[in-house]
Amino acid sequence: MNAPETFSPAPLPAALLDSLRAEFAERCSTALAVREQYGRDESVFDVPPPQAVVFAESEVEVARVVALCAEHRVPVIPYGAGSSLEGHLLAVHGGISLDVSRMNKILRVDAEDLTVTVQPGVTRKALNEALKHEGLFFPIDPGADASLGGMAATRASGTNAVRYGTMRENVLALRFVSASGEVVRCGSRARKSSAGYDLTRLVIGSEGTLGVITELTVKVHPLPEAVSAAVCFFPSIDAAVRTAMQIIQIGVPIARCELLDANAIKAVNAHDKLGLKEAPMLLMEFHGSEAGVAEQAAVVQDVAADHGGEAFEWATTPEARTRLWTARHHAYLSGLQMRPGCRAVTTDTCVPISRLAENINASIAEVEAAGLPYFIVGHVGDGNFHMAYLLDPIDPEELATAERLSAQMVARAIALEGTCTGEHGIGLHKQGFLLDETGSEAVALMRAVKQALDPLGVLNPGKIFATE
Amino acid sequence: MNAPETFSPAPLPAALLDSLRAEFAERCSTALAVREQYGRDESVFDVPPPQAVVFAESEVEVARVVALCAEHRVPVIPYGAGSSLEGHLLAVHGGISLDVSRMNKILRVDAEDLTVTVQPGVTRKALNEALKHEGLFFPIDPGADASLGGMAATRASGTNAVRYGTMRENVLALRFVSASGEVVRCGSRARKSSAGYDLTRLVIGSEGTLGVITELTVKVHPLPEAVSAAVCFFPSIDAAVRTAMQIIQIGVPIARCELLDANAIKAVNAHDKLGLKEAPMLLMEFHGSEAGVAEQAAVVQDVAADHGGEAFEWATTPEARTRLWTARHHAYLSGLQMRPGCRAVTTDTCVPISRLAENINASIAEVEAAGLPYFIVGHVGDGNFHMAYLLDPIDPEELATAERLSAQMVARAIALEGTCTGEHGIGLHKQGFLLDETGSEAVALMRAVKQALDPLGVLNPGKIFATE
Repeated sequence: MNAPETFSPAPLPAALLDSLRAEFAERCSTALAVREQYGRDESVFDVPPPQAVVFAESEVEVARVVALCAEHRVPVIPYGAGSSLEGHLLAVHGGISLDVSRMNKILRVDAEDLTVTVQPGVTRKALNEALKHEGLFFPIDPGADASLGGMAATRASGTNAVRYGTMRENVLALRFVSASGEVVRCGSRARKSSAGYDLTRLVIGSEGTLGVITELTVKVHPLPEAVSAAVCFFPSIDAAVRTAMQIIQIGVPIARCELLDANAIKAVNAHDKLGLKEAPMLLMEFHGSEAGVAEQAAVVQDVAADHGGEAFEWATTPEARTRLWTARHHAYLSGLQMRPGCRAVTTDTCVPISRLAENINASIAEVEAAGLPYFIVGHVGDGNFHMAYLLDPIDPEELATAERLSAQMVARAIALEGTCTGEHGIGLHKQGFLLDETGSEAVALMRAVKQALDPLGVLNPGKIFATE
Repeated sequence: MNAPETFSPAPLPAALLDSLRAEFAERCSTALAVREQYGRDESVFDVPPPQAVVFAESEVEVARVVALCAEHRVPVIPYGAGSSLEGHLLAVHGGISLDVSRMNKILRVDAEDLTVTVQPGVTRKALNEALKHEGLFFPIDPGADASLGGMAATRASGTNAVRYGTMRENVLALRFVSASGEVVRCGSRARKSSAGYDLTRLVIGSEGTLGVITELTVKVHPLPEAVSAAVCFFPSIDAAVRTAMQIIQIGVPIARCELLDANAIKAVNAHDKLGLKEAPMLLMEFHGSEAGVAEQAAVVQDVAADHGGEAFEWATTPEARTRLWTARHHAYLSGLQMRPGCRAVTTDTCVPISRLAENINASIAEVEAAGLPYFIVGHVGDGNFHMAYLLDPIDPEELATAERLSAQMVARAIALEGTCTGEHGIGLHKQGFLLDETGSEAVALMRAVKQALDPLGVLNPGKIFATE
């Protein structure tokens, strides 16, 4: 949460702006009101907005913008749904925000191969809306209605990852525009390949610094024959987390396993009048055949009972499930309303499942000692949880406290052999943590890759690591 | 299968050899008999052997060899079990073969996190032998008793990939020695992470050209409560393949789904006296609870019956399963004995599952028309199959025919949106196919990555792409 390194960029070259205006007309904007929309995200950073916003409607247009920017050495910042959390979209070196949200076509549904091909601006909800008529779904659900391009760029995951994996496992092929403005394709619709370097995985998680994604082919899954969701309440967070740990360790193929602490439940009760017990809760979902779901649920009830879990509430209809999932999906916004006018700083550590209780317990002890309001939600089946610190935005001490707590948590997660970010990315915020986590040798190789693929530093400079 | 570009390397610098001999004593060999063992693999290429072989016993030693070779601009070729198929191990530019097979310690088993950490020389069989006492297994099974380092380097998969994924999905973290001789660590024991570029996946499948793997942390899985294997025979290959396609399309979580054609069955019957019906066969395995396995098996029997599948033979004891799997695991060596003195050239295309029947049917028509002996085994649940052409090694026409058939098959697989290699890698053999598959833009980026991470071209030069 240190203030990002920012530079006062030179004005955009007139020749660049002339070209963009000539080619994109009203789809190139330098209006302050527009730029300011593209200069903010869910992070706490205060950075000047980009110098222009261009709305691309095709891969050819993306390539053209990147080529022009490369010619003029001006940064390009890809923009999808604007839901990233770590300052990925901020124009710390100035430049052009390249909005691809209008590239929102589902290009192909290959139901018999369980693959779909989409443009990068397609959001996960739009995709699932289109897929449900085919009996298919796309599992990655980071909460926000993010764009698939952005989800790939940040290696997103979310509530279904415990069973279905993250964007890392679910993207089969990409097309992207490289720093020189060329269109590159990598991967194929085959489910596996040993053909050369894994450029697909290199671009996934690269946060817009190696290419602008223009097309994705992702795996989808048949809608399960049966889906059952349940909530269960526990006497302590520790009991809830140990239940989740044991479910994973014994190999139950649970589809979702989410933790909400009592603070988060209080928030959603206040916001959505859900009337849930205000105690640590696991929200679980099972996918499979009728018999398989029943079998998984029985095992999980036994495990939960061993840890004092009680008041299982089941939901097997889509409507009843939606009510339970409302709690999870509204937790973040409801949580913010617990402290009117506050701003949240959210952590994202992920550790091996056996170390999760230790990480959460210590983090709670620290935030309670510091006296900051907070709530917890977590993809605990993956060892990943988010603690949101609710800060008074005009009190620098609270921000400093949150920064200290976050750094302590990350240091602990790394000591527990985990990662500083399970799914949000490095962005501006965690560059020091990345170094702590993987070491200077690995970061040096990452920098070498960046230098090789973007020698002019045109693609989203200043993210993942500061420019040298 | 074009002859690889080879160079007559300069003699090894005396200073390098002096250093290696001083530091490694009898673990540095220049004896022709030793070198010749390291100058051959399962490919058909005839290339001079490496100029020396060094046996490393620690990461520090690997780093030392690479640093010395970098200093003297001499190639280093990592060597694990020697089971690769595409010429990966061949010293086309001379240099040192660096044998890591003695680095065969299982360093940690973290059963409660379902992870293990191993040295690169650990083979999959040794790992599974050690894990079974913990109630765990490592699923990736490429057939050969390959080393895990080599399996990562070629992005291997095999018979369980349809359910458990490939090395791409199962490696969580690596340590490797970079081209400058530095130790790099990447990934962590957390199951997911968004921390920077995915160096782990970049090294997986890099065929020794970006680093020498010195340690791997991989996912393991609880031994299933129930395992059941079955064989089923079909009136045609097409019927067997369409059965596999449908099993995948309806989402049965089958653990293995292997095809053997009648030629392969004839071969294993002759070799192992198995008495199997000499007809296209699917060999399937189901993992889960007792009830879950029974349910999967019932669905699959229905699907198979719709395609004329008959004579289901079930094996639920480990012994009975071993007998059935003998057929699959001995298919390659048994197949070679169908034509005494022959040499096999094996294809490895992988296509979207809906296109698999088309790819196999056309490939059979072509090989039958050409009159070459062949057999087929396939990981058909993944869309991947291997056709082995059995060649008279002294008849250049047969090699030319196999080369033509293979090229036709690859061109078709690419047209069907698949890949030239599902699991064997590019090596020397498929460099042109890689270009056909992914295009010059992607290959140019791969070359840029290689240049950035190995500017002196020390690490296994000439593989994946020719040196420029």
